[in-house]
Amino acid sequence: MLSAEIIAIGSELLTPTKTDTNSLWLTEKLNDIGIEVMLKTIVGDDGARLEETVRDAMRRSDLVITTGGLGPTEDDITRQYTASALGRELVYHEYIEVALRERFKSWGREMPDINKRQAFVIDGSEILANPHGSAVGMLVEVEGKMLAILPGPPRENQPMFTDHVLPKLLALAGETSVKRRMLRVSGLGESAVDEIAAPIYKSYPTVQTSILFNKSEVEIHIAARAERRDEAEDTANEVANKLIAALGRAVFATNGETMEQIVGELLTKRGETVAFAESCTGGLVAQRITEVSGSSKYFMEGAVTYSNAAKMRTLGVDAAIFEKNGAVSAECAEAMAAGMRVYANTDHAISITGIAGPDGGSEEKPVGTVFIGYSSKDITKSVRFVLPGDRYLVRWRSSQAALDYLRRQLILK
Amino acid sequence: MLSAEIIAIGSELLTPTKTDTNSLWLTEKLNDIGIEVMLKTIVGDDGARLEETVRDAMRRSDLVITTGGLGPTEDDITRQYTASALGRELVYHEYIEVALRERFKSWGREMPDINKRQAFVIDGSEILANPHGSAVGMLVEVEGKMLAILPGPPRENQPMFTDHVLPKLLALAGETSVKRRMLRVSGLGESAVDEIAAPIYKSYPTVQTSILFNKSEVEIHIAARAERRDEAEDTANEVANKLIAALGRAVFATNGETMEQIVGELLTKRGETVAFAESCTGGLVAQRITEVSGSSKYFMEGAVTYSNAAKMRTLGVDAAIFEKNGAVSAECAEAMAAGMRVYANTDHAISITGIAGPDGGSEEKPVGTVFIGYSSKDITKSVRFVLPGDRYLVRWRSSQAALDYLRRQLILK
Repeated sequence: MLSAEIIAIGSELLTPTKTDTNSLWLTEKLNDIGIEVMLKTIVGDDGARLEETVRDAMRRSDLVITTGGLGPTEDDITRQYTASALGRELVYHEYIEVALRERFKSWGREMPDINKRQAFVIDGSEILANPHGSAVGMLVEVEGKMLAILPGPPRENQPMFTDHVLPKLLALAGETSVKRRMLRVSGLGESAVDEIAAPIYKSYPTVQTSILFNKSEVEIHIAARAERRDEAEDTANEVANKLIAALGRAVFATNGETMEQIVGELLTKRGETVAFAESCTGGLVAQRITEVSGSSKYFMEGAVTYSNAAKMRTLGVDAAIFEKNGAVSAECAEAMAAGMRVYANTDHAISITGIAGPDGGSEEKPVGTVFIGYSSKDITKSVRFVLPGDRYLVRWRSSQAALDYLRRQLILK
Repeated sequence: MLSAEIIAIGSELLTPTKTDTNSLWLTEKLNDIGIEVMLKTIVGDDGARLEETVRDAMRRSDLVITTGGLGPTEDDITRQYTASALGRELVYHEYIEVALRERFKSWGREMPDINKRQAFVIDGSEILANPHGSAVGMLVEVEGKMLAILPGPPRENQPMFTDHVLPKLLALAGETSVKRRMLRVSGLGESAVDEIAAPIYKSYPTVQTSILFNKSEVEIHIAARAERRDEAEDTANEVANKLIAALGRAVFATNGETMEQIVGELLTKRGETVAFAESCTGGLVAQRITEVSGSSKYFMEGAVTYSNAAKMRTLGVDAAIFEKNGAVSAECAEAMAAGMRVYANTDHAISITGIAGPDGGSEEKPVGTVFIGYSSKDITKSVRFVLPGDRYLVRWRSSQAALDYLRRQLILK
């Protein structure tokens, strides 16, 4: 089995509030193809320590990956000290500078002079294009070992790893195959899911199954290993299917999709439209549904009716409801949903009104109390939740509950 | 200034879902007394790598702290390999075993034989009692340098560090104090900020200044060290003030505040209100402004007018604009802002219309083209951006540009 080390570079990763997390994603990808991570180092903008770290890692392990320190400023020292660790020179490539200048021009800006540094790469390295940022990566092979030098931001290093490094590693690492499935569950807690799932996954001792709680949903990760690809796939799918059957409608995603993707797919399939009227979530539900490209096909309009005046003006909520039931009530949620559907002329409308905190709670309606309303031409109804957590979590969980409530209406019909 | 390295030990810390977090707390405590963490290593249950790591760290740094690997089982290899890194023997202390047996007895259990291993410590080390677990810690001084060997669980290593290691370090490190400031800059890139900031921070070689790009803003971290607290504070504030003066209005936060907090403070101070009309950001701006508790004082209403029908219905955008200029245009942005302000009856309104991608771009209006509109009773105007990045980033950067545009109007007056 091949061994790897990961080196995260940047003084900010040595502060009390930040640390390297790039290595977690990279570790998963390496483990998937049977490469084990033996050591991780986090080093600051400190040339001598970086050079020593890279040299030692290359001596000890088959593969070394560095992340970060490829920016244009003086603290970005990765180019210089990885080169010296290998005993190589940095060479200037005009075409990298030209491409960078073009990139800046397309953003309507002039390339600052210091970005020229990013056109220097290690002599003899393969240059890895970066469609998502200004720093190119490098891949160096030295006596059968490999050094991959990647930028720090995940949005830049992940595609670069997948597109350029992974194919080389697959050729090196050979056989074992891993098939992963990820199910997502809404409306059941971690222990409730585990009680149902354990009897199933325990009968597959060679399949690694883990259950993780993630803000507002439970994730079930399944990883089956086998020598042949199809064998691993068959086992992973068998476990997944048994879990889906046992957990029923609570499983909202069978291949790791997000809630907003699933809701979008259901609406697209039915050719129907939706609008949202949000109070305590402040636009989060609309923002999530529009994260999905193409959502303009089914999402028509959102109203963030934070004030009562807005609830009356845009949604036609009767002033009497605020006096009698309050803005956080089933009556208000239903009036908001019904008003929104008529106003936006959609097939479905969802409303959210609640108390996100930290202030505004009462004995009868504590912080975390949220009403979700639903309206179609056939029915208008609502459901009440008391969601745990701080302001951020209450809002996030409310948005999830709202999307899940819509999902359940769509699969019922 | 003293330098430190932290070594986290345990194979579970090299998996895709776990990593070392002990070092964050330790780093804060060390920074507080002026000790800088220069490197962190995460090593598995791998004797050769652990021994090499400890030996290298002791050579490079004044203080080395290890966490983990002190349990009773065979994978707990810290005792053995830290000893060999120092060229010392492990010695058995009967009183540790006796105390352990007592401890187990008090839990109503017999001590398992394997726990005997925990009675072996490095020859010549100071033994650190562990009231919260079975593993004692060790403190070894070697030629003026210090190696602290602590257990892994935070509730064991934190009190042990505070009670036994910190007092020694205070004596070694002397009286240093650190004051941190964090500035946030919008509308200038990392390199542009560095070009302006470098001449200032370079004239303070003892102040650690780092410049980080973070999605849509540049952070400037300042850390000044001095023997006295007030001295550190004065220096940090002096550097911060010079940077603020040089960077001007681009500095939106002088103490690490978020953009939405700053905009909220400005509106609160002026007793004014705002509404947002969003197209491509899909509710993200409203969601960000309402992340701040108490935002209902100044945020009245948001409209997520994703469809042209919604732009006409709610905002009164003239259908001719879509035909002549398109929905992504200065004219549409201004009509949206003006319409929103009148509709919601607020002092200010901001609109956002653009192409978040990945589809919908053209030569004239590529993906990332965004118009931000602003309207008050005195003026209606707009600004055009071409923002780089994928859908997620274009939307995030649009939301930042929108809030920053509002901020600039508020500080102009």
